[in-house]
Amino acid sequence: MATLQDLGVSAFINILGAFVFLLLFAVLRIQPINDRVYFPKLYIAGKRAADHRGARRAINLNLCTYFKFLSWVPGALRMTQTELIHHAGLDSAVYLRIYTLGLKIFLPVMVVALLVLIPVNVSGGTLLNLRKDVMFSDIDKLSISNVSPGSNRFFIHLLMAYVFTFWTCFMLYKEYSNVAFMRLHFLASQKRCADQFTVIVRNIPRVSSHSTSETVDEFFRRNHPDHYLGQQAVYNANRYAKLVKQKERLQNWLDYYQLKFERHPEKRPTGRTGCFGFCGRQVDQIDYYRARISELDKRIASERQRVLNDPKAIMPVSFVTFDSRWGAAVCAQTQQSKNPTQWLTNWAPEPRDVYWQNLAIPFFSLSIRKFLISIAVFALVFFYMIPIAFVQSLANLEGIERVAPLLRPVIEVKVVKSFLQGFLPGLALKLFLYILPTVLMIMSKVEGYVSLSSLERRTASKYYYFMLVNVFLGSIIAGTAFEQLDSFFHDPPSQIPRTIGVAVPMKATFFMTYIMVDGWAGIANEILRVKPLVIYHLKNMFIVKTERDRERAMDPRSISLGENLPSLQLYFLLGLVYAVVTPILLPFIIVFFAFAYLVYRHQIINVYNQEYESAAAFWPQVHSRIIASLLISHVTLFGLMSTMKAAYSTPLLIFLPLLTIWFHKYCKSRFEPAFRKYPLEEAMEKDRMEHASEPSLNLKTYLANAYLHPIFQMFEQEDQKEEATIEVRIDKSEHQQQQQHVRSSHSQYEEETSAQTHCHHEERTSSQYQYQYQHQYEYQHEETHMRSEQSPPHFVYHPGVEH
Amino acid sequence: MATLQDLGVSAFINILGAFVFLLLFAVLRIQPINDRVYFPKLYIAGKRAADHRGARRAINLNLCTYFKFLSWVPGALRMTQTELIHHAGLDSAVYLRIYTLGLKIFLPVMVVALLVLIPVNVSGGTLLNLRKDVMFSDIDKLSISNVSPGSNRFFIHLLMAYVFTFWTCFMLYKEYSNVAFMRLHFLASQKRCADQFTVIVRNIPRVSSHSTSETVDEFFRRNHPDHYLGQQAVYNANRYAKLVKQKERLQNWLDYYQLKFERHPEKRPTGRTGCFGFCGRQVDQIDYYRARISELDKRIASERQRVLNDPKAIMPVSFVTFDSRWGAAVCAQTQQSKNPTQWLTNWAPEPRDVYWQNLAIPFFSLSIRKFLISIAVFALVFFYMIPIAFVQSLANLEGIERVAPLLRPVIEVKVVKSFLQGFLPGLALKLFLYILPTVLMIMSKVEGYVSLSSLERRTASKYYYFMLVNVFLGSIIAGTAFEQLDSFFHDPPSQIPRTIGVAVPMKATFFMTYIMVDGWAGIANEILRVKPLVIYHLKNMFIVKTERDRERAMDPRSISLGENLPSLQLYFLLGLVYAVVTPILLPFIIVFFAFAYLVYRHQIINVYNQEYESAAAFWPQVHSRIIASLLISHVTLFGLMSTMKAAYSTPLLIFLPLLTIWFHKYCKSRFEPAFRKYPLEEAMEKDRMEHASEPSLNLKTYLANAYLHPIFQMFEQEDQKEEATIEVRIDKSEHQQQQQHVRSSHSQYEEETSAQTHCHHEERTSSQYQYQYQHQYEYQHEETHMRSEQSPPHFVYHPGVEH
Repeated sequence: MATLQDLGVSAFINILGAFVFLLLFAVLRIQPINDRVYFPKLYIAGKRAADHRGARRAINLNLCTYFKFLSWVPGALRMTQTELIHHAGLDSAVYLRIYTLGLKIFLPVMVVALLVLIPVNVSGGTLLNLRKDVMFSDIDKLSISNVSPGSNRFFIHLLMAYVFTFWTCFMLYKEYSNVAFMRLHFLASQKRCADQFTVIVRNIPRVSSHSTSETVDEFFRRNHPDHYLGQQAVYNANRYAKLVKQKERLQNWLDYYQLKFERHPEKRPTGRTGCFGFCGRQVDQIDYYRARISELDKRIASERQRVLNDPKAIMPVSFVTFDSRWGAAVCAQTQQSKNPTQWLTNWAPEPRDVYWQNLAIPFFSLSIRKFLISIAVFALVFFYMIPIAFVQSLANLEGIERVAPLLRPVIEVKVVKSFLQGFLPGLALKLFLYILPTVLMIMSKVEGYVSLSSLERRTASKYYYFMLVNVFLGSIIAGTAFEQLDSFFHDPPSQIPRTIGVAVPMKATFFMTYIMVDGWAGIANEILRVKPLVIYHLKNMFIVKTERDRERAMDPRSISLGENLPSLQLYFLLGLVYAVVTPILLPFIIVFFAFAYLVYRHQIINVYNQEYESAAAFWPQVHSRIIASLLISHVTLFGLMSTMKAAYSTPLLIFLPLLTIWFHKYCKSRFEPAFRKYPLEEAMEKDRMEHASEPSLNLKTYLANAYLHPIFQMFEQEDQKEEATIEVRIDKSEHQQQQQHVRSSHSQYEEETSAQTHCHHEERTSSQYQYQYQHQYEYQHEETHMRSEQSPPHFVYHPGVEH
Repeated sequence: MATLQDLGVSAFINILGAFVFLLLFAVLRIQPINDRVYFPKLYIAGKRAADHRGARRAINLNLCTYFKFLSWVPGALRMTQTELIHHAGLDSAVYLRIYTLGLKIFLPVMVVALLVLIPVNVSGGTLLNLRKDVMFSDIDKLSISNVSPGSNRFFIHLLMAYVFTFWTCFMLYKEYSNVAFMRLHFLASQKRCADQFTVIVRNIPRVSSHSTSETVDEFFRRNHPDHYLGQQAVYNANRYAKLVKQKERLQNWLDYYQLKFERHPEKRPTGRTGCFGFCGRQVDQIDYYRARISELDKRIASERQRVLNDPKAIMPVSFVTFDSRWGAAVCAQTQQSKNPTQWLTNWAPEPRDVYWQNLAIPFFSLSIRKFLISIAVFALVFFYMIPIAFVQSLANLEGIERVAPLLRPVIEVKVVKSFLQGFLPGLALKLFLYILPTVLMIMSKVEGYVSLSSLERRTASKYYYFMLVNVFLGSIIAGTAFEQLDSFFHDPPSQIPRTIGVAVPMKATFFMTYIMVDGWAGIANEILRVKPLVIYHLKNMFIVKTERDRERAMDPRSISLGENLPSLQLYFLLGLVYAVVTPILLPFIIVFFAFAYLVYRHQIINVYNQEYESAAAFWPQVHSRIIASLLISHVTLFGLMSTMKAAYSTPLLIFLPLLTIWFHKYCKSRFEPAFRKYPLEEAMEKDRMEHASEPSLNLKTYLANAYLHPIFQMFEQEDQKEEATIEVRIDKSEHQQQQQHVRSSHSQYEEETSAQTHCHHEERTSSQYQYQYQHQYEYQHEETHMRSEQSPPHFVYHPGVEH
């Protein structure tokens, strides 16, 4: 157990580290050369492009700016919430509210705890008087451990547990109500967008005599005659996508050699065709790649024909559009077919949010996948140490010496040896933890969710279980999760809260250090963006040829909910568990919440660019995790107090979890439908308003290509791109002009059709989306534009209904 | 532990008991005087009224009929399932399928178990060879206890556990699929009925300037403009109902005295007005009651005016009707309002099924009620022994002697004393168990469910928990539920399956006796109908004046799902737990299922008259309880085998519960929606068919009074009844003629409006419903008929829509 001095040293180091990071950030962010690393969102939103492109210098020489190293803070705070929602979307704005919720809960709790509990604990004085021989830390004097067993002072702790729980529940209720209101308001104030009219239909049964499109058409024409508008089939174009990707790679090489030839026109680049250019015959690289690309083009064309003409390429999934929000709301919320595993309808995610690969999974397979993945997650959480221990046992020094005897002299040097011995065993674990979110994301994808937002939420919840068991419980009850599991089976259930309860106050200093390292320093690292910074400059040196390429080299990323939500939830857990036990931990958590709030606000304004907008669909999860933390805190307090012989006060604790569970159930039924369903009242109101303001709106054209599979938007693009490459690349400057021209036609087109492809607020500029789409499926707009005259083959209108 | 001989004796006694009951039944049922006790359903269905009324003799003197004492069995089996559904409804038919499911599951299991497991167990022979000093029963030689610890024979038990589980799941799947199909088919083949077009709307918000009716009308006219038809308000008429009840009681007394006067016209009956006729002034009873009734009539009239005119008497609940099944299905399945605690829509239960008292409970109160009741149920299940023990400690012999010293000489007689000592402590428990279903039903009512069917289902599930903990676990782990709870907290979780597992084979003989006493003899008691028999004859002697009164004295009852489902589920549990452990128990269960099937089939055909039709809505519960039984059987087997040192085979058991859980989840998503939602495809198809066959149908008139509060149907009836009483009762025979006339006008009217008040198959006769309604709200039809010209004040049409 650490003393106060140890903790002070640790705090000093971490604060210093965070300070250095902030200083570095302050210096780096004002260098124009890093502008696209630290302000990508502003570029995408079109707020920074114009004024900085002209006068670009690499280094900022204005000394004055160096002194204002915290100048980003007021900038981050200046934007109001409404502006923030317009600028970055509701997801980001509500994400920030998690931090403010943390502050709202823990600030009053801290004040009360420090004023009431610390004096009570200190004056308890058992540790000082009774157990002089036992080692104890200074922190423990401030915690509940300092109160003598059987003391009546525990009534104060009990009272505080009730007060803190009620306060937390009150804040949770207010916040849930706020967020639900914000969500409904956001959805109501949205401009018309395709997903409001669209329902995703899965598990369409195969009828032998009909094509899938015909089946869908017939079914909805029969069962939703008044509101059905049309449907968009989903094609299985995975093989096609693979070919396109392959062509892209070849194109990159061709670009590279052409650039090389431009720089040194005296010598045409040559190379060998075999593996890694070491063997095979000698060829002219430019000609070789051109030939391969044109060959690939033929295969792509034939594959495209196959996808379009083969009825088997149409997946049993469809995006069905309705003529009103009311019709779509009705279809999404009702059961369609006698067989509840067929014709499953759901709100369509917005087009950006669709995860196309999972659309065609049949119902039975889905149920098996979910089952298997839940077993896999359980195994991962509790037994992940087994493979790692195995790898560790292989990757020891003796093993390395045996494989590479040459390294033996180096390894035998004492400093190196001790370093390696300390480093190697941890390496496997570090690697595992690094790839863990990716692994969990893959698991979620296997489970078969159809939208990116739900994938992220599922990943977050898996990660939370991992953190809860391996970070929280793992730190409190020393030992691996597997050992915990074993003891959970073999200890009586009444023993478990005791084991945890007794250990909790002893681990307070550990968690304080954890908060400083993972929280404070981690957040400072977040703002510095080391990895994107390095990668951007590397790309800038080797790949970037045009302004457009530079734009593509930007890596704004988005808030990674899959990782951030669980760690935030862990801080709530720590705060609630320690609020009564060791209240001195609370200031650390408050500093974390405040600092992280500032940093993420800055990042959301300047850096992150969300891939999709789920309108705060993650809030119910946040809410229930905090409730779970409350319950865990009750159990630990119960266990702790039952070992403290507080026989009178402990039984009174039993009502706390019961009340909390009731509160949760009430909140769930009160607010959760706002996140799962779309009330008909709202739908009807919006329909009415729209009808009044735009009576002549042609919804058919509006919805025509909204849910086009991205691969279709690449069909013609490929041809066009190729022509552009062959003809234009010779003269680079001319090419650049052409790019400029394309860009402007982009913007113009974007204005016309933006609502078709995604939904956004009027305030957003078109270039924001332009970036998004360039990044995902380049050039798609040009070709969509070109194709808009001829009706696409895969969109079937309902001929009977005219709107 | 009992030996085979003990068990044989017990079996003999119980079989003899059952046989005696059956013999008695055979004799009693053929006495015409008991006809209305043993065939009430046939009277209600109109299948028996005509041919038996004329030539009634009290005693059957035809000796031949006495010899065919099992003649009811072929009669019970003759009806096909389709006929059964038409005769008694889908609920009853599906209820019988639970018994056949039991037979289908356990017959093959028994054959395999007896052929495979018994030889394996007997040849194991540990008990004979090793532990000669330990007492063991003969039954144990046939059970798994006989196999020597660590034996490889446990692989056979393991295999059998897998085989039995797969077989059970297979049968469950088939049955669920069958029942779901039957339900959908039943709903599809139903005639037009009001609940198909009606949605119950709860928690209608109060708008200050509008009445509730106006609010509802406006809301649905706005949000369901194409399909909304009208609405029926629900009045809070509890006080009025109380007055009516009071009047009924007075009327009964008046009838009684009038009858007395008729028999002895020389002396007018007199009595005192005070308590129990002991004090107060002397009055002429007939005049006195007439005066009181006419006074009450005035209060009833003013109360009626109050209910009709006071806007506060309209509850925030409404039955909203639509012009198509599609419209109603859409409204029932979607969320209406932004605030998910308002405008809650659900399928309306059929009119007979509505539990009017619970309609107006607000959402917040509901959530508190559910929470409190779940705590109360928990307390009841685990701590019910505490108050009983308290009562027992009061009601001992000393206590009685102290209170009533006169009884001392009697009590001190040795035989009496020992009888009382054996009897008294059990009395409180017996009384408690007798009133338990009623208590649980009251709890369910407090929880706020709005239909009788859901109330019964909730009662059944509460009763199941009670049986599971107190009968199953309570018998296996000796001791009260409270002690079990305590040991569950203080034993390690791995110990609990062991404790149960070890005790399970030892308790086999107890459960065999239980099956014989509770199952065999209980069922034989069921068919004899002792209580209704006695009550009917008592009523016949004292109350019955007319044929109509005799009809009212019939007590057909209905299948009491609240009690029968849990006990059935207990038999499934016993069968599944003992199938691998002590297979010799299976024949007992099979005899129970077969016998109970016959008896209940007979009762359903001849006796029971269901109050409502829920279209087998209880099946999901049956299914999941059997799944739970499977899981419990796995846990006990796991515990048992882990104490048997079967280290190789035990871990293989772990997949069994996992697979079972997955199976359950799959079934739930595959079949349960059929019991919760109404697919739009079905709704649309029925709408279309109806439109084709009856294009000129006027739904408005059809639906006008379907969901009239029963109290409203009593308004005019009261006047009419009073007149009838005063004028007609003087001459009894004349009165009877009038009754006869009323009856025929009934039937005629019933043909016209039956669909308005309830939904039924074409084959059913009107008199069946006539009985139902006479029983519930007498005379309602006459007045409905009379009032049908003038539009009722509480039914608001949507003026804009004409159909």
